[in-house]
This record gives sequence, structure tokens and C-alpha cells, in this order.
Amino acid sequence: MNEYPSKVLQEAVEAISSLPGVGSRSALRLALHLLRQPAENIHHFASAIDDLGTKIHYCKECNMVSDEELCSICSDTRRDHNTICVVESVRDVMSIEATGQYHGVYHVLGGIISPINGIGPGDLSIDSLVERLQRQEAKTEVILALSGDVEGETTSFYLYRKISGLAGKISTLARGLGFGDDLEYADSLTLGRSIVNRQEFRP
Amino acid sequence: MNEYPSKVLQEAVEAISSLPGVGSRSALRLALHLLRQPAENIHHFASAIDDLGTKIHYCKECNMVSDEELCSICSDTRRDHNTICVVESVRDVMSIEATGQYHGVYHVLGGIISPINGIGPGDLSIDSLVERLQRQEAKTEVILALSGDVEGETTSFYLYRKISGLAGKISTLARGLGFGDDLEYADSLTLGRSIVNRQEFRP
Repeated sequence: MNEYPSKVLQEAVEAISSLPGVGSRSALRLALHLLRQPAENIHHFASAIDDLGTKIHYCKECNMVSDEELCSICSDTRRDHNTICVVESVRDVMSIEATGQYHGVYHVLGGIISPINGIGPGDLSIDSLVERLQRQEAKTEVILALSGDVEGETTSFYLYRKISGLAGKISTLARGLGFGDDLEYADSLTLGRSIVNRQEFRP
Repeated sequence: MNEYPSKVLQEAVEAISSLPGVGSRSALRLALHLLRQPAENIHHFASAIDDLGTKIHYCKECNMVSDEELCSICSDTRRDHNTICVVESVRDVMSIEATGQYHGVYHVLGGIISPINGIGPGDLSIDSLVERLQRQEAKTEVILALSGDVEGETTSFYLYRKISGLAGKISTLARGLGFGDDLEYADSLTLGRSIVNRQEFRP
């Protein structure tokens, strides 16, 4: 007997264990869980996944996932269309939206410049950002909200050079100690930047 | 804006988070991972899952998952068809097969008697076991390989009463200290049973 009693089960386990962070034991557990469900539930599950490949659109303006041609943020006239927050991924838009603090629009790059992973500027939606800025008013603010590691900084610097003539203002996320952080446990780079970029105390 | 930028994404996340042990954050992470794959990979993934509902058969003899009418174990003539190991689930068959120590056949109950979960003897494949024994030679050995908790013991006792006239011999798994277990850390019930059911020392 093969390790798996059924080729169908084996293929399901292999598919599930291709997900990041899911080992073959967990995958088997999940596949056997699904197997115990009625066929229509399994089908519902499978088609919800399949729809990700066939029914998802990307907003033609900001590249965010969307069910329509224009995403709900870009089509919202109450939002400030003269502030564009550039982020790496869909996940980042959702994180910033969850704060409830931002009322501008976004531009999703779809990745970050990473020579090690073979991702160059041409693989990201940078040209569409440039085009978008050319269509916009000159006073548009661009917020570069990329991660603080080397790849994020490289991408920010590349973008800065690309768009510096097109944007009214280019800003980046404030970096420093997190709220509630203890000085004792902060890394020295973060603490150092927090002192250099100190802000006026407004009680 | 809704919490999710897209209804399609939301439905995929909800489907994935219906799996046991997968929270909504992990589900979002997995959905976004899938979203980054080419549509044909997503479709392959979804159809592998869908097949669980449509293409899986259960062996007409032992109730094990199978691609054929008769599973690979039941159709293997080299195995001892006069020893039937009764287990709760597909998972248990795979665990016992992985030991390489068993050469008989199986009977998968598809669950265990559990009044709390509303599972009675009628929900399990007990009638098919009885029928199977009636067809078999009288000297067939039945191994009750169910878990050692109250529900497992209840099910074993129920099965014992049902099949005691039909089987040549009814046995159960040896229970005692695990290999490499330290006496100091064994629970007293297991240790007590290990002493009562002590075995001849064969060096």
C-alpha cells in the first residue's frame, strides 16, 4: 500500500501542504476534516478558492484587489484623492484601513524591489504610479509606506527619484518607538532615530 | 469600505477559516498567498479539494477511503483476510499502516459512539461489520483498536456484545507504558495496567 490510501486524498493533501506554514501532517488533518463534510460544503469551499483565480479584479487606478473595475476606495468621492499612499501589498492597505486614521487613496506596488528574489522595478506597478501622478494635480502628496528594511528603503529611494518632479510632497511613515514601548528593550537604531526625529510635545 | 476590499476575497477567507485550527488572520494570509499564484495553480488547488467531495469512494468491504470500489488493502491477496482490525477513522488506518507491523485487513467505523455528540451505533458502520463476519470463516480474529477513553471503551464493549458469537477471537490493543517512558512520569492508571498485564520477559 502507498502511504496514502487514495490518489484523490493524496492530491488534496499535496495541494493543501503547498500553502505556506502548513506541513504534511496538518494538511492531512485538514483534508480528512473536509472529507467528513457533505459534498456540497466541499464544493462551496473549493469554488470560493477557485473564484480567487477567476473573479478577482484589480482596481485599474490603484491596483488593489476589487470586485469592480474601480475599487471601493478609489470610487469613494469623500476620500482625499490628492494624497496617495504607496504600499507593497493588499495586506498593507487592509492594515492601514483598519487604523481608521487615513482618508486618502492608495497605490499597491504588488511587491518590493528585491534583487535576491529577482524582483526588479519592472515587475512592480511603478509605471502606472508615474502615469497616475502625471494625470493628477501637481500638489498631490505621495506617502511612501514601505517596510523599514533594506529592500523597502531601496524601493522608497527608487520611487523618490522617479516621482520627485511629479508629486507636490513626498513623505514617509514616522518611525520610532511603538506606543507603550519600554526604552530599555528598544533596539538602538530605532531609539537613535526616535531621538533625532523627536517631535514637539503636545499634551 | 468594508473590512475586506472584495467580496470574493472575503468569501475565500471565510471558507479557509472554517477549517479547524485556522483563524481569520491565518486564513487571510493563506488567501492572499493563493491570490499571488497564477489562476491555473489556484484552479488546480481548488479542483484537488473539490475532488474530495466527488471522486472519493469508500471501500465496500472495509469503508476505507479508496479510488476503487475495493481499497488497495482489501484487494491485496497477500494480506491476512482472517484478521480484521476495527478502527475509528481513516487516519487510524494510516497510522497503523505506517508501523509496518500489521498484515491483516481493516474495518473503519467512521466514528465512535458518543451520546454527547449525538453519535449512536446506527451512525457507524457496525451493521456492515456484522454482515462481513457472517460471510467470513468462523475463526476470524477481530482486533478492537479504538481509543482508550470512555467513548472508545463504550464502543469496544458495544461491539464485543454484537460480534462475540461471530468472531473466532476478539482482542484489543496492548496498553501500558510507551517505549522509552519513565516510570516516574507515567500516570498511575497506565502504570497499574502495565503491572496487571505484565508480559513474559523475552530478552
